[in-house]
Amino acid sequence: MKQSRMFIPTLKETPADAEARSHQLMLRAGYIRQTSAGIYSYLPLAVRVLQKIETIIRQEMDQIGAVEVSLPEVIPADLWHETGRYLTYGDNLFKLKDRHDRDFVLGPTHEETVTDLVRHELNSYKKLPVTLYQIKTKFRDEDRPRYGLLRGREFLMKDGYSFSADEAQLDDIFHDMETAYRNIFDALNLDYRTIVGDAGAMGGNDSREFSAVAEIGEDTIAYTDSNDYAANLEMARNIDHYIPIQEDMAELKKIATPSVGSIDSVTDFLKVEPQKLIKSVLFMADEQPVLVLIRGDYEINEVKLTNFLHADFLELASDEQVKALFNAPVGSIGPVGAPADLRIVADETVKKIINGVTGANEEEYHFLNVNFDRDFNVAEEDITDLRTVREGDIAPDGKSKLKFTRGIEIAHIFKLGTRYTKVMGANFLDNNGREQPLIMGCYGIGVSRLLSAIVEQHSDDHGIIWPRSITPFDVHIVPINLKNEDQARVTAEVEALIGQTGLTYLTDDRNERAGVKFADSDLIGLPVRVTIGKKAAEDIVEVQLRATGEKLEVKKDELVNVLPILLSKTTD
Amino acid sequence: MKQSRMFIPTLKETPADAEARSHQLMLRAGYIRQTSAGIYSYLPLAVRVLQKIETIIRQEMDQIGAVEVSLPEVIPADLWHETGRYLTYGDNLFKLKDRHDRDFVLGPTHEETVTDLVRHELNSYKKLPVTLYQIKTKFRDEDRPRYGLLRGREFLMKDGYSFSADEAQLDDIFHDMETAYRNIFDALNLDYRTIVGDAGAMGGNDSREFSAVAEIGEDTIAYTDSNDYAANLEMARNIDHYIPIQEDMAELKKIATPSVGSIDSVTDFLKVEPQKLIKSVLFMADEQPVLVLIRGDYEINEVKLTNFLHADFLELASDEQVKALFNAPVGSIGPVGAPADLRIVADETVKKIINGVTGANEEEYHFLNVNFDRDFNVAEEDITDLRTVREGDIAPDGKSKLKFTRGIEIAHIFKLGTRYTKVMGANFLDNNGREQPLIMGCYGIGVSRLLSAIVEQHSDDHGIIWPRSITPFDVHIVPINLKNEDQARVTAEVEALIGQTGLTYLTDDRNERAGVKFADSDLIGLPVRVTIGKKAAEDIVEVQLRATGEKLEVKKDELVNVLPILLSKTTD
Repeated sequence: MKQSRMFIPTLKETPADAEARSHQLMLRAGYIRQTSAGIYSYLPLAVRVLQKIETIIRQEMDQIGAVEVSLPEVIPADLWHETGRYLTYGDNLFKLKDRHDRDFVLGPTHEETVTDLVRHELNSYKKLPVTLYQIKTKFRDEDRPRYGLLRGREFLMKDGYSFSADEAQLDDIFHDMETAYRNIFDALNLDYRTIVGDAGAMGGNDSREFSAVAEIGEDTIAYTDSNDYAANLEMARNIDHYIPIQEDMAELKKIATPSVGSIDSVTDFLKVEPQKLIKSVLFMADEQPVLVLIRGDYEINEVKLTNFLHADFLELASDEQVKALFNAPVGSIGPVGAPADLRIVADETVKKIINGVTGANEEEYHFLNVNFDRDFNVAEEDITDLRTVREGDIAPDGKSKLKFTRGIEIAHIFKLGTRYTKVMGANFLDNNGREQPLIMGCYGIGVSRLLSAIVEQHSDDHGIIWPRSITPFDVHIVPINLKNEDQARVTAEVEALIGQTGLTYLTDDRNERAGVKFADSDLIGLPVRVTIGKKAAEDIVEVQLRATGEKLEVKKDELVNVLPILLSKTTD
Repeated sequence: MKQSRMFIPTLKETPADAEARSHQLMLRAGYIRQTSAGIYSYLPLAVRVLQKIETIIRQEMDQIGAVEVSLPEVIPADLWHETGRYLTYGDNLFKLKDRHDRDFVLGPTHEETVTDLVRHELNSYKKLPVTLYQIKTKFRDEDRPRYGLLRGREFLMKDGYSFSADEAQLDDIFHDMETAYRNIFDALNLDYRTIVGDAGAMGGNDSREFSAVAEIGEDTIAYTDSNDYAANLEMARNIDHYIPIQEDMAELKKIATPSVGSIDSVTDFLKVEPQKLIKSVLFMADEQPVLVLIRGDYEINEVKLTNFLHADFLELASDEQVKALFNAPVGSIGPVGAPADLRIVADETVKKIINGVTGANEEEYHFLNVNFDRDFNVAEEDITDLRTVREGDIAPDGKSKLKFTRGIEIAHIFKLGTRYTKVMGANFLDNNGREQPLIMGCYGIGVSRLLSAIVEQHSDDHGIIWPRSITPFDVHIVPINLKNEDQARVTAEVEALIGQTGLTYLTDDRNERAGVKFADSDLIGLPVRVTIGKKAAEDIVEVQLRATGEKLEVKKDELVNVLPILLSKTTD
């Protein structure tokens, strides 16, 4: 392929408004252009990479018996009303009307559409299980699109949906899908973690998230070096290894703590370690007040709390709400003497505190020597894990230490159960002739986002470094000066030779200075460059590996042997 | 692939609301399902066919150096305001707002988007020509979607756009594209015509339309048996071979024609042949009146008239407008004594009429013996071809006869020139350093519509008959009873054998009666069926060609030789 016909508009300068490295490089190397905020055109090089990613995905889907469909992008709002998501999905949903004033949405995900499709067809256990998937454009009207393809408003996704007759079938598919996803991300040479995800948002009951390690990532992942454990910070668990000093319970004492509010100032003022403090925070969960207790050295994890309370909306109580309930300001409340009918939930660690410290429910006063069971109580079923883990904490295996890294969510698989099929009446007759709702799973990959994740991991200051499996072309042929007869001849011969090997190539046929060509070549990032320069007269060309910079001169005829060997090493 | 996992929901009955044969069959054979009016889900079999069509298109685009991009589907309204199409495109344009109240459209076509993409990049003649294309979802809010995929609101299109430095480059690309399109439609085994199209709608100056022959088609095509000539009825030309009787001019005479209005009644009443009549019709072209003359045996072609007048809006004048101008009713007007400043345009055939008949511009009176030049005049430049051709007319080659057929528009290529680049400021520096607007072409194929067109042509009363090149699978393996040990064994062996040949197969593993399996197999329409029944014990299977119904029994091991031969014959 001739570079001059390919439309690869490279940029010398880094665009000012691109923060993420992948965003900068894909703009500079001529892979993408923005049409409007968060909405991009994919240029020819990017389309070639995307198609290779899609091929890898399709092969793995084939392997596990998932079959491809293509669902509409413009979806009747009625379907989203059936599940209630028309209202709950929020402003991220693009809405429109047709000429007859009927309401539609642009699909950000297709649980409703696919359930509607199968609900009168998959009507018997004999037709199950079935797994359908598609690779298509999705839309989400993000408030603040950013980082290029990482958080866009129009993006490419692989979304899959399984329908089964029982949990065992769902478990099998879920397991197959997890394996397929690992194969896909391994094939893409991605450094990723499989983590325990938050299934709550999709209304499901089990989920696994795949996260590509990258500084720019929006999620913090807690993991162990052995990779036996990885979880989003919001879901991560630890073993609390703190052993309090074993002392006798002392007498409850109320003391003045003037102008003392924060944990630090309380512990400073009282000269106690934060592990003695019982932090007390009032939340409103679906408009009901809940007092949440946690040990002073931990933070409350609101995702865990929301899930534990099965709450739709959770927020901190306002100063007024605290005052109304406790007649004390936010920094001075506590469980001792809290309103009798107020629900109290506590992190597990609170129970172990001996002679602790809490607010006294009186402005500028705290209690000392507070003890669980003696001075306050929490129902056994309201004691749970509500804490946010910290780097260095002991992992759930009881021995490894948790490390933190940032990650990009590239895929998520969910066991949805009957969340959608029940409300949409997607039923089948089981083998006893009883009507049951279909049991559903959903399986997503952010395909365009993968592009960014890969570039985040496979690039240097000079540009992109494509892994072999998805490079737009295998070889970049760069003649220094095509007006030179020898160089023109050798270029044509090298093209023919490479063509014979089945490798693909891009030839820089532009009339540009060598420096410009090399800089663009580094930016574009094909694994191997063949430079044709002065030694063309002797049929000698230079081969260079993009990843390592390694160079060697070879006779052009040797390329047939050298290139496949070099490329097999370029997994980067 | 196992049929039970494939999601192929066949229907026994023809859906009541499906008029077109292709629509009926694709619903019945489980290829598509409607989600809302004119918006369909493509089920697994359809996706496989579409992907084969896409592959054929991509190969041909590669051949001519067109490169694939992927443009946004949600397009800022601002781009469409730049060209004025936001207003002129009408209600077919889906419009929406984002959460910040900014206006967008769902792209029905991408001249604006692609011109915006290149306008700051293709800034020198050195970077030209470039041809970009994509295969993506498009949207058009049709008032009356119908015929399944033939006129839908969300559909798949291949749209391509070329940018060149001069007309010669454009001509080359246009020619290459026409060749590529012929190759594509030949590969799809389509019976199609390449016809002179109406370029007006896209604002271009030359176009070629590809139309698949089908009864359900919305266009009438006039063509010659030799296929040297084909045109949409709206654009078709003929050679008028009528020779009037050569007689002397007689004296102009006004006669009463009471209660006579229509052409037939005038000719009946006056006992003259319709070729003597000068039909006179008043039009309003962009609100200016124009009197149009045509010979009585022809009809006025409003597309030709609109293009000739360069009118944006053309309509018949109202009774009131006619009365106001002529002081006579619609059926009694004519060119003799028409208002002096009224523009008169005439079909070429009018000039030859000797002693003709026209309305006398007086209620219930006509003129006899009207002669061009003597009794009325039309400016030389206002005499042109304004007639609609009739089946049996002489084609422009002067010898063949025109035949009519109905056609489905499957593709259209346009020389757009600078229609879009000029208003959008998409300029380049030519080799003299002068700024010029890019010269553009656009090239569309209705990809999902092709599916319908192919099924219209390749089907019978029992179902679809896929051409080999795009069949979802090559072979349908139909075991009668998989509970029978021999049949199960032979089925597995046949799958393995076919797998070795590189052919693809679908195995009907369902527990259904033979009659149901055969009926579904006919509906689905794979080129070859291998039935495994009672003779499985002897390793004998039955092979049947879908197109001809031809059957033969073969030893299963012979399949390896027999199937490729049979398939090579199934071009139908």
